[in-house]
Amino acid sequence: MTAKSSPTVLPEPPYYAVVFAAVRTETDPDYDTTLMRMLTLVAEQPGFLGFDNAGGGSSGALGITVAYFQDAGAITAWRDHPEHKVAQQSGKASWFDSYAIHIARVERAYRFDRDEATR
Amino acid sequence: MTAKSSPTVLPEPPYYAVVFAAVRTETDPDYDTTLMRMLTLVAEQPGFLGFDNAGGGSSGALGITVAYFQDAGAITAWRDHPEHKVAQQSGKASWFDSYAIHIARVERAYRFDRDEATR
Repeated sequence: MTAKSSPTVLPEPPYYAVVFAAVRTETDPDYDTTLMRMLTLVAEQPGFLGFDNAGGGSSGALGITVAYFQDAGAITAWRDHPEHKVAQQSGKASWFDSYAIHIARVERAYRFDRDEATR
Repeated sequence: MTAKSSPTVLPEPPYYAVVFAAVRTETDPDYDTTLMRMLTLVAEQPGFLGFDNAGGGSSGALGITVAYFQDAGAITAWRDHPEHKVAQQSGKASWFDSYAIHIARVERAYRFDRDEATR
């Protein structure tokens, strides 16, 4: 995935964050294809607000994706999406060496943009 | 920072997560020194549970650090720590081009470890 120039802009809290911290096994072209498909699909989900992603490009390195949703129901619906479920199975079967998922309700948020701060 | 071999192991929810998504301006040796000092300092804070970190090694690339705490009070205490406050000022003055902070209460969490799954 490409580096982003700034973190995703979000509405005021409360909203939900899904932290996905994962270590990949090895480079697999199927992974990249599925990842692109999942990013398209999640963006179509009702209640999806955006995501931030960092690292994880190489095998053995930790990558973190944080996806933001309007409410807990939107997260459950995405978790249970049939195509996403298939991807989850492949993730466990081969793509990830380990991962942790944290589903959290965002209570407070702050943002800093140099452009705006110095304008 | 070095790549980790797996995401941080945490107790059962509820606990808190602080998502820090940031884009750095340019390489500054003072930043690395301060980062190391902050990591030492935060680990000494009552209620600190651990952290995950990915990306952000180069200027312009998004980095994400997620720090986990026992409760909201531990986060406030860390935010107000005098040495951390000085670091926050330097962050705004020069190290970061932009950042977003999300303070969230983790309600559910899952973990997958290939070693344990296949054992």
